[in-house]
Amino acid sequence: MEKTVALLLADGFEEGEAIVIMDVLNRLQIKVDLLACQSSPALVGYWGLPIRTDSLLNNHLNDLYDAVVLPGGPQGARSLGANPQVVDFIKRHQVADKWICSICSAGAHVLAANHLLQGKRYVCSGDNYKLYTDGYYVDQPIVEDGKILTGKGLGVAFEFAFAVGAKLIDPAIAQAQAEHIYFDHWKAS
Amino acid sequence: MEKTVALLLADGFEEGEAIVIMDVLNRLQIKVDLLACQSSPALVGYWGLPIRTDSLLNNHLNDLYDAVVLPGGPQGARSLGANPQVVDFIKRHQVADKWICSICSAGAHVLAANHLLQGKRYVCSGDNYKLYTDGYYVDQPIVEDGKILTGKGLGVAFEFAFAVGAKLIDPAIAQAQAEHIYFDHWKAS
Repeated sequence: MEKTVALLLADGFEEGEAIVIMDVLNRLQIKVDLLACQSSPALVGYWGLPIRTDSLLNNHLNDLYDAVVLPGGPQGARSLGANPQVVDFIKRHQVADKWICSICSAGAHVLAANHLLQGKRYVCSGDNYKLYTDGYYVDQPIVEDGKILTGKGLGVAFEFAFAVGAKLIDPAIAQAQAEHIYFDHWKAS
Repeated sequence: MEKTVALLLADGFEEGEAIVIMDVLNRLQIKVDLLACQSSPALVGYWGLPIRTDSLLNNHLNDLYDAVVLPGGPQGARSLGANPQVVDFIKRHQVADKWICSICSAGAHVLAANHLLQGKRYVCSGDNYKLYTDGYYVDQPIVEDGKILTGKGLGVAFEFAFAVGAKLIDPAIAQAQAEHIYFDHWKAS
């Protein structure tokens, strides 16, 4: 059965992180829904890029995805973290034992800020982890603990995207796709 | 003086390539104009992402940028290559000794297809180089020859973006920014 990912976005989302994740997961034949976590499907990224998402989170509150993915961008991540619909959506996916994946500041501003890490090891960008008490910060490019997968920031977006994909499909297929796009910095474990 | 880049786009542009380039160049404080090389500023990428560009190429035919950048995506690159405005725009920048930079299939479908390489060494994705007689294909991630800078494909998008940036600004600043975003795979030469 086709695997599905909810990519949660708000104004100020980090374009490179969100789009690399979308691109790589599409290449792995995983269905990615770009969900706007605000009232309009039209969003503007951190660098001012206007995009149109697939739908509103509000239209998918009862759907269950194989993974929920949260990109960074300071304003975007803070908006996601302050949105009760986002927090409830993540909690419902945790109860269903689905993957929760964040990159850059989203690990801090969404997951740690809302005590969704429950003490698990994670990574985020910069010193953002110091703002919150939840979670155990580990300074590595990609950190996995239970069903929480976190990436440090934009420069590891490809590694993060392949790591997320390899949780949902055959890692050997992810490896072949990494080679197909000439990405030499990720190996299926 | 602020450096400027024209990022030429058409429907079917490879989202990951275009957006990583835009993102990294913005971080290097280079002004990037996303120019739609068709009649509407609203474009749809290879994976179906709707974006809005900054302007139409048609509004900038007489502007001179420090670099012209061409992303891949088979349909997008072929559309750029078949567009006389795009070809004339590149030729005018070549006469002015500006950088011409392509990634993925754009090296073949835009540059080689229109004899804009003039025999120079370049790289592109897959076997696309076999379709055209112009240029000397070299199988490396990034290839530089004269004022032509080419990248192989999506998986080297960050390396390519930093290589382009380092032609326009102090490479040490590009190096610092690579470290800032945790990108360990590029070193200023």
